[in-house]
This record gives sequence, structure tokens and C-alpha cells, in this order.
Amino acid sequence: MESPYPILANVSQPTDLHGLSPAQLRGLADDVRKAILDNVSRTGGHLSSNLGTVELTVALYGAYHVPPDVVVWDTGHQAYPHKLLTGRLDRIETLRKFRGLSGFLRREEHELDVFGAGHAGTAVSAALGFAAARDRLGQAHSVVAVAGDAAICSGMSWEALNHGGEMGTNITVVLNDNRMSIAPNVGALTSYFTRLRSRPLVQDLAYRAKHVIKRIPGPAPRLAAGFRHGLTHYFAPEDTGTIFEEMGWEYIGPIDGHDLDAMLDIFRAVRESPRPVLVHALTVKGKGYDVAEADSRKWHGVVPFDVQSQELPVKAGPVAYTQVFGKTIVELAEEDENIVAITAAMPDGTGLNGFQERFPDRIHDVGIAEQHAVTFAAGLAAGGAKPFCAIYSTFLQRGFDQVLHDVCIQNLPVRFVMDRGGLVGDDGPTHHGVFDHSYLGLIPNLVLMSPRDATELREMLRWMADYDDGPTAIRYPRGAASDVLPESRTPIRMGRWELLQDQGSLPRNVALVGSGSTVAEAWEAAAMLESQGIKATIVNARFIKPIDTETARDVVMRHHLTVVVEENVRSGGLGQQVLDACRDLGRSIEVLSVPDRFIEHGSQAQLRSICGIGGAEIAEFVRTGLESSVESRHSTHKAL
Amino acid sequence: MESPYPILANVSQPTDLHGLSPAQLRGLADDVRKAILDNVSRTGGHLSSNLGTVELTVALYGAYHVPPDVVVWDTGHQAYPHKLLTGRLDRIETLRKFRGLSGFLRREEHELDVFGAGHAGTAVSAALGFAAARDRLGQAHSVVAVAGDAAICSGMSWEALNHGGEMGTNITVVLNDNRMSIAPNVGALTSYFTRLRSRPLVQDLAYRAKHVIKRIPGPAPRLAAGFRHGLTHYFAPEDTGTIFEEMGWEYIGPIDGHDLDAMLDIFRAVRESPRPVLVHALTVKGKGYDVAEADSRKWHGVVPFDVQSQELPVKAGPVAYTQVFGKTIVELAEEDENIVAITAAMPDGTGLNGFQERFPDRIHDVGIAEQHAVTFAAGLAAGGAKPFCAIYSTFLQRGFDQVLHDVCIQNLPVRFVMDRGGLVGDDGPTHHGVFDHSYLGLIPNLVLMSPRDATELREMLRWMADYDDGPTAIRYPRGAASDVLPESRTPIRMGRWELLQDQGSLPRNVALVGSGSTVAEAWEAAAMLESQGIKATIVNARFIKPIDTETARDVVMRHHLTVVVEENVRSGGLGQQVLDACRDLGRSIEVLSVPDRFIEHGSQAQLRSICGIGGAEIAEFVRTGLESSVESRHSTHKAL
Repeated sequence: MESPYPILANVSQPTDLHGLSPAQLRGLADDVRKAILDNVSRTGGHLSSNLGTVELTVALYGAYHVPPDVVVWDTGHQAYPHKLLTGRLDRIETLRKFRGLSGFLRREEHELDVFGAGHAGTAVSAALGFAAARDRLGQAHSVVAVAGDAAICSGMSWEALNHGGEMGTNITVVLNDNRMSIAPNVGALTSYFTRLRSRPLVQDLAYRAKHVIKRIPGPAPRLAAGFRHGLTHYFAPEDTGTIFEEMGWEYIGPIDGHDLDAMLDIFRAVRESPRPVLVHALTVKGKGYDVAEADSRKWHGVVPFDVQSQELPVKAGPVAYTQVFGKTIVELAEEDENIVAITAAMPDGTGLNGFQERFPDRIHDVGIAEQHAVTFAAGLAAGGAKPFCAIYSTFLQRGFDQVLHDVCIQNLPVRFVMDRGGLVGDDGPTHHGVFDHSYLGLIPNLVLMSPRDATELREMLRWMADYDDGPTAIRYPRGAASDVLPESRTPIRMGRWELLQDQGSLPRNVALVGSGSTVAEAWEAAAMLESQGIKATIVNARFIKPIDTETARDVVMRHHLTVVVEENVRSGGLGQQVLDACRDLGRSIEVLSVPDRFIEHGSQAQLRSICGIGGAEIAEFVRTGLESSVESRHSTHKAL
Repeated sequence: MESPYPILANVSQPTDLHGLSPAQLRGLADDVRKAILDNVSRTGGHLSSNLGTVELTVALYGAYHVPPDVVVWDTGHQAYPHKLLTGRLDRIETLRKFRGLSGFLRREEHELDVFGAGHAGTAVSAALGFAAARDRLGQAHSVVAVAGDAAICSGMSWEALNHGGEMGTNITVVLNDNRMSIAPNVGALTSYFTRLRSRPLVQDLAYRAKHVIKRIPGPAPRLAAGFRHGLTHYFAPEDTGTIFEEMGWEYIGPIDGHDLDAMLDIFRAVRESPRPVLVHALTVKGKGYDVAEADSRKWHGVVPFDVQSQELPVKAGPVAYTQVFGKTIVELAEEDENIVAITAAMPDGTGLNGFQERFPDRIHDVGIAEQHAVTFAAGLAAGGAKPFCAIYSTFLQRGFDQVLHDVCIQNLPVRFVMDRGGLVGDDGPTHHGVFDHSYLGLIPNLVLMSPRDATELREMLRWMADYDDGPTAIRYPRGAASDVLPESRTPIRMGRWELLQDQGSLPRNVALVGSGSTVAEAWEAAAMLESQGIKATIVNARFIKPIDTETARDVVMRHHLTVVVEENVRSGGLGQQVLDACRDLGRSIEVLSVPDRFIEHGSQAQLRSICGIGGAEIAEFVRTGLESSVESRHSTHKAL
């Protein structure tokens, strides 16, 4: 049977494109687009951004020699065409599935995923590293970075552009300008890019050459001088004077990122440049699929859908933590006009879209700029406002120094709200929020909380709004706010935990200490254990920092075995704080946590199971551990 | 007796400047300069950068109304004049001394230190926060940030400029352009600033007004329109087209940062602007002290010296870790041509100056850009080179996400070399490197080491150069490489500790586990204890991650009390790893660490003592703890 993607089916590596005619390359682009649409509609994934980079990718691989040339992709939302052109068509249906292809780039997955991508803004830095290594090793290949217009505005991209402009070696940055990150882009540079976009399109060498000849007397010497001077001016004879040129980069653009012939022409020329070049390509998110073109934000990350009906299924599930936050922050802001919200390019993902509609002048979307977001929030707090800074757990890593240096040293009451704490699921190792117990817990002055369910999140946010004595943070997981837990609850008090179920100190009893998502897992484990005659005391460790030493010591003291379960790495996590606080009690304390390795992608339930922190795994651990821990304690006491 | 600073002596707050005549303001500037020179020559501190901001600061406080106006200073190296003009003349002699004035800005120190400063590049973000808070609270004061030309090139400053250009509210950024950070500045923007500097100086309103009138027909409407449109063009009638303007900021400059009258004139006008303005002031590091003007790098941070002789005393002390690294990296690079070095604007501070001289094309100074530095290093490693990335412990916090996301997830063999690990001394809370055991220890794949002395640092660097299996990091303290320890030593082996002295398991014995600097402290404590009949086994925990579980368990098992001592916070540190690894052994383990609060400035010895991790404090802890721990262990066993 013929492949539904006849040309693509014969491409197993980028250099296969070099034998194709222009018409075949256009056919290849159609195949790639169809393959993305067919497969993402079945698997879910990032749709509109990848539909936008089809021609760009075909042109890059048609012009560059990969390998040895190196192409570094930023973020990865734009790299499905790259996956398809590097021999992964037969596995694309496993996209984002457990043990299947990653939704991002991973060096383990393919040798042409030369540099992993997940967090935005890394590609220019990494590509400069490849270029510097090439120069050091005396190699001669070309290096490319492809970065979106939102990623290129992040601080680290600018640091890289500043360095690259000075290095002055062969490197091309392709600015994939689709005018969006996930939400519409923000920042002064976005308006600036809009001005650049309004210029006449650069089309092809022949076209430009004609203009050059028409406008400039004696163009031959300039052409002969090749790329050493003024590539920009070869393509665009008028002075362009762009920011990129001020920073030492040749600027070529704007070009139509769906005009395959023009891009092939330009990339073939640029590939030889001994100097840094920035190619500004205009692409359309969702290109080729009408509804996605019309509403690329809605079609950015999608669940499986029917291509023909062009409709996204509406998820009707239990309420997610994201929504609980989104609703509560609006309520709080209605009560207190000093409250402002900060997002780093993710009003939708963080649940702030409702706030944005209700209070458009009280939300600050700073773009992909977590460092600035945090210190900006510190300035807001120092100036007397009440900032809530909503950044995913994994992305707040970018602002670690700012949290420590600008917020916590000064003990400023900034409120951090971290969605996606814990195992995030399909997005995999670059996005798991399994480090925040540790990287925030090590910082003096910071108060860190995690709610066991939707109601507790609401109560914590209210508590946090009232707490003005220093910085606070809440982390909660991706997904549904559990409702399996008992409705009776105790009020939030600074640094105090909640005893959900107390079974007293019978010999066969165990104490389970959970926090956030693992409270529900502990609850599930307790039910399993009960049927086997083991009764579990359950503690809701609401505060990860400071811990409730009094309750911890009391519970540990009264049980032969206490198991702390956390959706976080072990080092510096809740478990080690409990071990430390109870180190003199002579009781068995065990810790179940995310192991000390990076965790793959898969469903959250699969990953919790792999990490040994799901309900069934906790129960199993307790069953086997209860005996052996009692035994080992006896034997070690004898050994001294 | 008359004050040697007659005008300054009568200034206790910035608004006192408003009553002074132009001549008095010039006299005040002379007083400030003299006070800095007199005092820094006695106390040591940052000299040349502060001599450069004298007129700038006098002009700012002469023009702005502080308070309520807000001035945020970046970094703090430039803020001694600010301290002197805010009533701290009588305490300036305590600068950087224990319990004295901080060398940076601190909110606790003075109400006009509105935002702390230490790490570079935070001021624009913080000032925007103040401006946004002002707008939210309906206040009307003006906000200023003063940032150096090196700090303004850091990624977070660009994120802030990008955001500020869009916010479009009253804020002034004064770019204090002295062409230097500590070493000469790097990056394409630096060349760009040089081009801006070559333009004719903006002098004063009257001067410019004449030009405006001469060049533009009917300037009156433009003047009347005030600052809503084209402040830039009012001061500089020609199109300036600077990067800052592209980003939405009015640009005024360059101005002579020592021309008090011109600056007063400009700041008074700019203060009223409803839009963001960047004032580009050219200053001279070391201004007014000839030798410092001539060699500002040498006179950047100084020890006490004699003003008249104009000579810096040459420090002749024991060899510092910094020098050991500097020498060893050159040796290693001579043996392996793939080795390259990376610094973030600190070739001198990190000890790479020798490398820079010897291998100018194998060192990459990326500027104050730690994020880029780390991912650039990851790209170098992925491309086959062997990068050593030398960044102070405290500054690597800026690259935390990049270490995790770009280096460690991909398990790339980047070598991190962290000077100033532990308590840094005079620079205080913003600069202590007391978090790296924790923030690096939590990251999978990373190997973290710390040497006990100069010889071990050399050996570790050699070991690290040979280790290609993943990322590695070494941290070592500021100052002299101790030589009090026994010369016999065991070779470095992956994850293995060194037993320096083994006293066996007699009842009164104790085990001390140190790492890096605390090995020598433990050694000192052991000598004190020995005289009191307590013998100490001493372990050199060379590897902080992975820990040597086998040795740890063996040592803990054989001693009633093991004390882990580390110059790092407790949460996630070495001590908690030992507690965790030995949690089932039923032995007493105690941890001495930097407490969970930010530590002030002072000498390293003072601070170690305050933190309870100096030799005497360790000995005292063991003496009292040995008894009580045995007792409490018995009593708790009875209690179950």
C-alpha cells in the first residue's frame, strides 16, 4: 500500500532533501503538514506552532548539510517537522506517549536532536557553544539556531545575541516570528518586530540582485567581497539599522516563512557566511489548517480531535487546580485593590485569563522573562502593592537567584503561585516540577505550602493574601483537584500541619506524611492497608517550610514506622526535613520521593507509579517495610 | 573643630541639596569625593567605581525629591556617594566592618536604601516594580534606576527594558557608562555603546534649545507638547535611532557624568516625563584620584592604602584557592587543547587572568550573563570541546535553571568551578556562597566536590578534566588554601571520601565529617578535644554528591556521635544526606551548618564563629553534645 505521505516516506535523513527538485520539496512540505495534522489529531500535542514551521524546516534541511551542519531548535514546540524529516515518521504516532517520542527534542532520542529543548530561550546560547567548539576543534560546518519571537526576547537569548555579535563567527539564527508565544506576545520588542514586519519582503537573490544593480553604482565589488561586509546590505540595499545589526549581526528579512523557494535561496547563501546572521522569517501559526490559523491560541496545545469536523472536544472533567486559583485570585482582587498579578507569557496556562479580563490594568504579562518577573514583583512589594507571581514550578527555576537575592534576603511579601508542581506528565523531564520543595526550601525566610485539594488551595490563597510578614509560595500539581479526602478540615495556621486521621500507637500501625498530591495517594494507600490489618495515621504536611516540628516529632514518636511521601526529589525535600527534625527519636522514618534521576514522560499516574509514590506503591512499601524496619532497628541496636 | 567635609557635614538627607547653590553643590561633590577617598583608604572597599558616581549622585539628589521619589541603585559598587548623602557620613568609617555599614545597599540599613543590591542587573526590574506599585496606588512620585553599562547588558536588565518600554510610565534609567564592569566590558553592546559615546555631548537645555530653534521651524509646539512625544528629539534634534528608542525608551545622551550643571538641568526635566527615559551618562572610574583613573581595574576593590603615596600595599600571604585554580587550569589546558574556559565578566576574580594571557582565543568572557554562560558551556560540551565554566558560587545561582535543564538533564560534561563557596566575608548576605551544596545537590547527574586544601584542589581539577561521563562541579572558599592538614593523602576516586584520622570506636570518641573549609575546622576542633580526652575520627567528605554512603555508614556505625560540619545551609546539605543515608543505624548524628537565616557581613572567621562551624565552636558542641546525645538516646528508647 502506498504511504499517505509518498515523498516523506522516502526521506530518512535531512540530506535526502538535497536530491529533490523544487516541486518535490513542495510536495514534501505538504506531506509533512499532513503527517502532523493526522498524527497530532490522534495523539494530541502542539499543533499550531508546528504547522507554522513546515516550510522553514524543509528549506533549512534542503539548504544546510545536516550532519555535519548543526541545527539547534529552541523550545521544541516547533520541531515536529524536524522529527519527521529525521526518520521518525514511523514513530510519530507514539508522540508524547509513555516510552514514545518526546514532545520536545531529546539527545537520547535521536542523534540529530543535537541539543535538548524544553524551556524557552536556550537555542542561541547552545548554538554559539557548538560554533565555538567547531572553531576550537578546527572544523568547518555551519551552525543554526531556530528561535521563536517570544523566546528571542527572553533575557538569556539577549545575553547570547550580545556575545554572538562579538564572537563574529559562522552562525545563523532563524527568528521564527509567528507573533505569538502561546498567548499573544508582549513587550516593547514585539512592537518593534511588528515594525520590521511591515517592511517589504526579501524574496530571493535574483530579485534583490536586480535592486542592488538598479540602486547602487558598481555592485560587482560588493558581490565579490562576498559576505565579509554587508550581507544585510546585499539583500536589502537600504540601511536597515535593526537592533540585530547594532548588536553585530547581519539582518536579513523579513522573509515569508512559507515561501520555500525564497528561503532555500537565502539559506544556501547564508550558510557560507563567516559572520553571524539573523534571518527573520514570518510564519503563520496553524498554517494550512483553517481553524488553527484563525485561532492559534486555542489550537496551540490540543487533545485528540477530529480533523474533518475541525472541532476540539470540550473537556468536561473535575475542576483543575489551575481553575481554582484563577477563580480565587479574582475574588481576592475584588476585596483588595492592592493585589496585582504577574505572569511570564502564560495568562492562560496559569489560570490568570479570567483575572486578565476582569482587571486588565492589574495584570503584568512580562513575556518569557521569569528573572525580571520575580524582581519586578519584589519591587512591587517594596513599593506597597501586593503581587501574586504565577509561574509554573519548572519555570520559576529561571528566577531562582531573584527569589533568593531580591525577594527573600529582603523578606519582601511576594506571593509565588506555582502550578505544575510535581510530575507534570506528557511534557517530560524538562517540565517536571519535582525540585521546588528543595530549591525553595533551602532559602531562608520563604514560607512554602502545598494544598491537599481544591478547598485547601482556596484557603491557602486567602491565608497567603493576609500574610504580610515575608515571601510565600504555594505549589500544586497539574490536573484535577482531588476530592477523595474528608471534608472536615482545620484552619490554616502558620507552619502547622493537619492530622487527617490518627490511629494511635499500636505496634502494627504506620504514620504516612504526605504533602499536596501525595496526601490523596497516602489516603488511598491507607485504605488498601486497612484491608490487611494495618492502620495508618495520615498527616497533611501543608507547610513544606517551615515544617511542623512539633507534630512531626509527636507522630514519629508514636509510630514504629513513619513514611514521608513527596512528589519531589529526595535531596532537600520534605522527607529529609522530617528525618532531620526527628533524628534523635530512635524511630524508623522512611522517605518515598522522586528518585535521583530525570523522569521520562508519560501519564502522571504512570510516573507516580514508577517513582513509587502512588497509592499502591506506598501500601506495598509499608507492608514490606514495616516488618524489615522493625527488624533492622533491633539488629542495629544489638550491633553497637 | 570644623569638619573636613564642611558642606557634606550639613547634609543629612537628599532634599537638603535643594537649598544649595550651584557652587555649593560643586563643593558638596568635592566633599563627597574626599570623604570616599579618606575612608576607603582606611577601610578598604570599592574605590574607583564610587569615585565615578559622585557628581551623578549629587545631580540626582539635587534634581529629584527623594523621598517620595525613589532611586534604585544597581549592584551597589557605585552607591557610596548615596550613603554619604543620606546621613551616613558619621558611620562611613565602619564600612564593610562587622556590624558596620554594608558595602552594598540594604533595606535594613537605611530607609532610602529602598531596594537591596548585590548581584548585578536587578535595578531596572525593581524600579519598574516601584513604578507599577506607584501607579496602582495612585501616587505621583518619580522613579529612577541607576545601572552600570555592564549590568545593563545582563539578560534580566534587557527583560526589564523590554517590559518597561511597553509599560510606558514615568521611569528614568540612568546608564552609568564607565566602560568597565570590573574588567573591561565585553559583548557587542559594548562596541555599540562606544559608538553612542562618540556622539556630541548633550549639554544643557539652553544649549539644546538653541539648536532646536535653529534646526526646526516652529519648535514651540514641540516644547508645548512637553514630554508626551519626542523628549529624545527635544534634546537631540537629529534622529538618534538607538536601541533604547527601538525598545520604547526616550534616549538622552551621551552626557558628561561629571558635568554637574548639565546633569541637574537634564534630570530636572526628565523627572517630569510621563514616559520611560534612559539617560546615558559617561563617567570615569576613579575620577579625581589620578592613579585610580589611570588603572581603574587595579583600584576597583582595594585594601587599605595610603592616599598620599598612591600605592596599593602588595598582599604577601599564603596562596589562595583562586591562584591554585588559575595555575592548574593553565597546566591542564597546555596538556589538552580541547579545554576552553568561560567567565562571566570576572577573569581576574576567578583566577582566569593567567589563562587569558596564555590562551586568549580559548577563553570566552560572556559579560554579566551567567545564564548564557552555562548553556553556552553546554553547547561547547555537546560540540566536543571541554569547557571549564568558572563562576562564583553565589553568581551561579543565576544559572540554576540552565545547570539543571541544559547541562544535567543532558548529562553533558561541563566542569563548573565555583570560587567563594561558603561564607564570603565582607561582601555579606548577597554574596555568601552557602547554598550550593543544596541547589546543586538536588540535581540528578551532577557530581559535586570540595577540596580540603590547595593540593586537593589541584588533584580534583585533574580528576575533573579526565571525567567525561557527566557534569561536575568544584566549590572552594574565598581566601587562603589551608595547609594545616596531614600531607599524606589518598587519590581522588569517584564518590569516595577520605578518612584523615581514625580513632576507632571507643565510647568517648566522636566522628567529625567535614567538607572543604570545614575539614580544617574539624582538624582544629580535634586538637582542642584531644587535650580534654576526647578523640576524634576525621572524615574528609570530598564528594558532596554523590556521598560516600559506605564510608558514612561505617563511620557513623562505629561512633556514638557523628557530627557533620558544613559551610552551607542545612536544608539539602551534606548533613542531611548523611542523616538520610544512616537513618536506620540508630546512632546519633548531628549537623553543624550555616543557620536558616541570611548571614551578615564580617570577617570569615567571625562569621564561621557566629554560625557555630569554627574549630572552637565544633569542639564546644562535641563536648556538650557527646554527653547529652548519649543520654537523650537512652531516654527516647525508654519512652517508646
